[in-house]
Amino acid sequence: MITVKDLQAHPLDRVHRLIEPGPVILLSTRYRGRDNVMTNGFHMMVRHSPPLMACVVGTWDHSYRALVETGECVVSVPAADMAATVVDIGNCSGADLDKFERFDLTAVPGEAVEAPLVAECWANIECRVADTSLVAAYHLFLLEPLRAWTDPSQRDPQLLHHRGDGTFARDGHIIDLKDRMTKWQYLL
Amino acid sequence: MITVKDLQAHPLDRVHRLIEPGPVILLSTRYRGRDNVMTNGFHMMVRHSPPLMACVVGTWDHSYRALVETGECVVSVPAADMAATVVDIGNCSGADLDKFERFDLTAVPGEAVEAPLVAECWANIECRVADTSLVAAYHLFLLEPLRAWTDPSQRDPQLLHHRGDGTFARDGHIIDLKDRMTKWQYLL
Repeated sequence: MITVKDLQAHPLDRVHRLIEPGPVILLSTRYRGRDNVMTNGFHMMVRHSPPLMACVVGTWDHSYRALVETGECVVSVPAADMAATVVDIGNCSGADLDKFERFDLTAVPGEAVEAPLVAECWANIECRVADTSLVAAYHLFLLEPLRAWTDPSQRDPQLLHHRGDGTFARDGHIIDLKDRMTKWQYLL
Repeated sequence: MITVKDLQAHPLDRVHRLIEPGPVILLSTRYRGRDNVMTNGFHMMVRHSPPLMACVVGTWDHSYRALVETGECVVSVPAADMAATVVDIGNCSGADLDKFERFDLTAVPGEAVEAPLVAECWANIECRVADTSLVAAYHLFLLEPLRAWTDPSQRDPQLLHHRGDGTFARDGHIIDLKDRMTKWQYLL
């Protein structure tokens, strides 16, 4: 059985390194004893430290009610090799099936929230809903990371970016411009 | 002189194709007769149609005041070839210099806002600030796209993704999974 002890704790003030590149994410919830997971490309970092994220989960998403009622989720970052599974997760509903079972995902208990981590993902971020003031108007949730984890067996994976039309870019060449980051040295 | 007539109008209900992949963006403003431009990686799509975006611009950014006072900006998406310039734009301040001049950027008048388009970028989105209710707490602006444009000479460019540490991934292999997008056919 996989536990968070098999993962590497990721510093909370470095959560932006997991999310800022704009990867497609999975968002997991646990509500009334049932785990669910959705695919999401509408999210961003809001603040480096203490970290804050935002994401859009609509009333049309089965996860919406779980997120509202529990105020908790796990944001997971899959490597690009999971592309087909990631798309399939986003094209069926937890109202109809158990997605963890259907897609052979391994739910790992977190430390701070009831929602499950996804063991197959490169990174997992345990979050609590921090602000719901824009949920009614725009389905926009602010998420506060409470714990973050990476899989030590997946070093520097290629991430997956949805181009908004069913095509996806995986990370290609990495450009190192740290020398030019004169104003943002504390991020390096 | 380049005008929007040299660009291709991009449908507003397809703005997500420009932004959802998580590219580093430029954000331009015009305030009291001065153009300015900043680099930004904290942004997302909020709604497909009518399109809505969000981005974080902090009080520490010189563009903050321009954005608040004018309620307008242009979000531009550079191709990965502009990486060094994009980073340099983000590591100096419009308080000290004219960045359009310094970086040889071509300011193009838009149709709907006073802020300039950046001719060198693949895509340009003219935006008005639609909601400021989370600006005080999180510097989070909601932006409503009013016009969107792409450069017909830049077809399907590789985008640039900040990995949060001064390294950047450029788009690599494109994966076509349209066949699996059974639930989201209207996006294709």
